Amino acid sequence: MYPSPYQPDFSKRDPYPGVDPMFPTRWSPRALVKTAIAEEDLLRIFDAARWAPSSYNEQPWRFLVSTTETFDTFLGLLVEANQKWAQNASVLGFVVAKRHFTHNDKPNDCAVFDCGSAWMSMTFQARLLGLYTHGMAGIKKDAIYTTFGIDRERFEVVAGFAIGVLDARETLPKPYIDWEVPSPRKPLAEILFQGAWPQP
Amino acid sequence: MYPSPYQPDFSKRDPYPGVDPMFPTRWSPRALVKTAIAEEDLLRIFDAARWAPSSYNEQPWRFLVSTTETFDTFLGLLVEANQKWAQNASVLGFVVAKRHFTHNDKPNDCAVFDCGSAWMSMTFQARLLGLYTHGMAGIKKDAIYTTFGIDRERFEVVAGFAIGVLDARETLPKPYIDWEVPSPRKPLAEILFQGAWPQP
Repeated sequence: MYPSPYQPDFSKRDPYPGVDPMFPTRWSPRALVKTAIAEEDLLRIFDAARWAPSSYNEQPWRFLVSTTETFDTFLGLLVEANQKWAQNASVLGFVVAKRHFTHNDKPNDCAVFDCGSAWMSMTFQARLLGLYTHGMAGIKKDAIYTTFGIDRERFEVVAGFAIGVLDARETLPKPYIDWEVPSPRKPLAEILFQGAWPQP
Repeated sequence: MYPSPYQPDFSKRDPYPGVDPMFPTRWSPRALVKTAIAEEDLLRIFDAARWAPSSYNEQPWRFLVSTTETFDTFLGLLVEANQKWAQNASVLGFVVAKRHFTHNDKPNDCAVFDCGSAWMSMTFQARLLGLYTHGMAGIKKDAIYTTFGIDRERFEVVAGFAIGVLDARETLPKPYIDWEVPSPRKPLAEILFQGAWPQP
């Protein structure tokens, strides 16, 4: 486990009674303290992702993750606003989707959706180990393809992520410190429609 | 909880040691026994999805789910091969993504990926309640837009799903019975790349 000096306040979140605490106590912090993650724990995190469901069991998810030697290369492929806090992550990485089915080479319309499932799985395994993840849309996609020689006809760089150990909120500079609070959610009635789609 | 007469055999699955059992014991069965799900449990399942992470906290996921009165309508919007087993589901539904960000009306490139995260979260909450989910790519997308009056400029129908109670494998007809076994996965080395992308 990776002890943290900080206990985030989830009391403003309003899960429906009986929802497992694993859901509302997951969040995406930016205050991280540079800490080495044991290789076994890293393998556990990505192995959890392996078991996600996928269309035709294609398993279109690929994870390209930093090592100690390559961390700065990965960091430079995030947009600058993300670099400022993500420099304290333990590991940085990119979720990459295989665009076509292996069995027939046709486009896999579920590839990105299935990558989202795998990403959520790795996040929950990280939390079980005491670690946090933070997904990032703010990545330099063109530079990622060229830096790593990823064939963009066959693979799609979908998102970036940081894995790290939570540090105290007060360690963050502005404006990040103002954002460092578990975010709220829409009421369930705005995302769940039973029997009919809401008409404008 | 929803007791099942059947204990699936996960012994062929090979999680890395220390991976939480919630990951390799999740699967997508087809043998379901028609059972009413308590409304509170259904709300718990979709509330868990609510807490998934999303780009700009947009929460682009929408869930359109069947009621008792509308079940047959939902069933008819699956491809025939899925209708045969999904008729025994307790609830059918569709994951729908809001295509644009609410704050600036620009396309949300992460919407489908974020929907995958929400789908995985609802699946884990379902398992915690003793229920199973089964995602479906085989749905009649055009008919779903028209049947429910979904504006396809603003929303994308991403996937279908069934939620149900596991029944014995032997209740399934051919060919489904042959498929009713927890599926294997690629070795971790085929999806996790540390420091470099594999070159052909």
